[in-house]
Amino acid sequence: MPKMIQQLRAINPVVLTVANMVTPADVANAVNAIGASPIMSSSPEEATEMTQLASAVTLNLGTLNQLQKQEILAVIKAAEKFQKPIVIDPVAAALPYRHQFIMSLLSQHHVTVIRGNAGEIASLAGMKWQSHGIDSGTGDQAQLSKVAITCARQYGCVVALTGPTDIISDGRETVINHLGTSLFQTYVGCGDMISSVAAAFLAVGDDPLQSTAAAIRTFTAAGQIVEEKMPAKLPGTFFTALLDELYQIDDQQVRARVHEDRTD
Amino acid sequence: MPKMIQQLRAINPVVLTVANMVTPADVANAVNAIGASPIMSSSPEEATEMTQLASAVTLNLGTLNQLQKQEILAVIKAAEKFQKPIVIDPVAAALPYRHQFIMSLLSQHHVTVIRGNAGEIASLAGMKWQSHGIDSGTGDQAQLSKVAITCARQYGCVVALTGPTDIISDGRETVINHLGTSLFQTYVGCGDMISSVAAAFLAVGDDPLQSTAAAIRTFTAAGQIVEEKMPAKLPGTFFTALLDELYQIDDQQVRARVHEDRTD
Amino acid sequence: MPKMIQQLRAINPVVLTVANMVTPADVANAVNAIGASPIMSSSPEEATEMTQLASAVTLNLGTLNQLQKQEILAVIKAAEKFQKPIVIDPVAAALPYRHQFIMSLLSQHHVTVIRGNAGEIASLAGMKWQSHGIDSGTGDQAQLSKVAITCARQYGCVVALTGPTDIISDGRETVINHLGTSLFQTYVGCGDMISSVAAAFLAVGDDPLQSTAAAIRTFTAAGQIVEEKMPAKLPGTFFTALLDELYQIDDQQVRARVHEDRTD
Repeated sequence: MPKMIQQLRAINPVVLTVANMVTPADVANAVNAIGASPIMSSSPEEATEMTQLASAVTLNLGTLNQLQKQEILAVIKAAEKFQKPIVIDPVAAALPYRHQFIMSLLSQHHVTVIRGNAGEIASLAGMKWQSHGIDSGTGDQAQLSKVAITCARQYGCVVALTGPTDIISDGRETVINHLGTSLFQTYVGCGDMISSVAAAFLAVGDDPLQSTAAAIRTFTAAGQIVEEKMPAKLPGTFFTALLDELYQIDDQQVRARVHEDRTD
Repeated sequence: MPKMIQQLRAINPVVLTVANMVTPADVANAVNAIGASPIMSSSPEEATEMTQLASAVTLNLGTLNQLQKQEILAVIKAAEKFQKPIVIDPVAAALPYRHQFIMSLLSQHHVTVIRGNAGEIASLAGMKWQSHGIDSGTGDQAQLSKVAITCARQYGCVVALTGPTDIISDGRETVINHLGTSLFQTYVGCGDMISSVAAAFLAVGDDPLQSTAAAIRTFTAAGQIVEEKMPAKLPGTFFTALLDELYQIDDQQVRARVHEDRTD
Repeated sequence: MPKMIQQLRAINPVVLTVANMVTPADVANAVNAIGASPIMSSSPEEATEMTQLASAVTLNLGTLNQLQKQEILAVIKAAEKFQKPIVIDPVAAALPYRHQFIMSLLSQHHVTVIRGNAGEIASLAGMKWQSHGIDSGTGDQAQLSKVAITCARQYGCVVALTGPTDIISDGRETVINHLGTSLFQTYVGCGDMISSVAAAFLAVGDDPLQSTAAAIRTFTAAGQIVEEKMPAKLPGTFFTALLDELYQIDDQQVRARVHEDRTD
């Protein structure tokens, strides 16, 4: 990860997120804090011009509805045409209404990265998984890797399966990340934030696997740094401090923690 | 209130909120902090599957529009079919567009809890009340109780009339709660949060009056604890600390404050 | 600026914002913190009654779509009929989809204030400007003043061009404001907040130029006060403290800083 955060901040890429209606402000602020320029739109009519303006796009299915389907289709077509990297966040992909849409979408279009939890990725890979609400359940590292690799091969893209352990794979090479904090589960929308931050990193470098891994390592390292400074599990304080840390974190801090993670 | 917070956290119930477009993130975070699992949807097409997944639902009318009417109708029908408790938050119910919809809704469907301020509850009860914007004005405890009890009897449900004093009534039994803080008025969406937190408590126990009272006592006790630690009225700091406190508060703390409230 | 904040808090005006879908909670909280009463709506059907209820309205084009166009048209017509001051925030006005709508809107209706960054105001004035994403680029004070004055004369309204230097002009008289902080750029939605806070001040006094200038001085002074207390650039901490400061700031503090600004 050769100075990717520094490069990202130098470029200040425009990142378009087709957001869910719950966490758009927090997502925009996470993208802004890491050093990119967030834009959002809720109109299919301007999908093409918004996509052209962006260096990468994120499609978040968190509160999918009829209007958003039109917009997602318009953005994905424009992104293919103008060769912009695409991150898709298949929130609660196992639910029928979403599942049908995303399977159809992935059968007709190519995305750069799928970022989801174990349950969501398993659902897209056609594998069974236990889940609860929008949470995903857990599994051991070998199982998780199998799910991520299967999904990556099936769709010919990078899969970032995030949770207590993060698995990032393009079906050939697989990166394991143990950085992070259980505080991510105490604040809603951390998954949404990671997906859009991943899009920001795709604007840097030309290897989607490495860019996605860098994004996830940076985000989880920031969370871990915040946790180490906190006296207790405090969700409100955590989010405020996470934005602060995303703004301040640098490549050296992330690299040091990745090194520690590997040598544990 | 026998260890309701503890039970709630053990169950970790899924709570579906049909949210307004202003405060969904804060509502989801309040529900998450208290120990439930928040889900949201903006699509009538998935209303049934989302409702089945949930232990309780909240219908928030804060920014009602045509699409949301469809979704609310779909969720309320599914909730009746699958016997899920329903909380309705009739934001600004005195305004004609909302009033007409909610009166029609309440004439055709049965809800478990109506949670609103004095002006909103009075409007549903067909009683006169002074209000200003989305605020509700105040009144003495006897007047407020009459409004809550009248509304509860009219719709055969629990009414939670919240404000400086909270009145929770099912038309027979009435609980008065003085816990709370004037800081709730300094941060937008505290009412929305209470309504969805009430749905979380309806998933615990089988007496809606007691569950609703427990929810309101817990939420207001958390606010009061935060206020006692604050040097001044600071809305931003208040909300951050409120999420922290909702995550940390336990049954014993709430019980001690309820006891003090009663013996004052 | 004779005790405008104090007057605003005494009146507690209702401010209607047709909000974008990204920052509505933060906007509502900024309006609430300064001492007004925020309301929002996403339904054209209740646009008239919501506008009648309000002392001033803000039309934010941040995530304009088909439904919102209908609502904006309904609100602007009602605001003209009931003589309510109108603030328009032409977010990313240079993009074709938005540009077309706002040019048509401004050709048929009169607004009280246009609040935007240099790129947005230049676009409405038909002048060339460099921009990046939703950011606006900068220019020297003489250039910026020319852009603001040209736009103000073209539409016969007050223009508030905000950025590192703020230019507020009605085409005859021009107010320059250097108060502020670069931290505004670290948190998404500060522009949206200023626009709706400006609407709150339009409910006080009868000179739109002075009211708008007072709003911008108050908001930027609050930001500056927060910055002076912060050990580093921390976006999350900044926003929390900004809400706190908007709630606490008074006319005397603003006046003292305006005086310093002028005598620098």
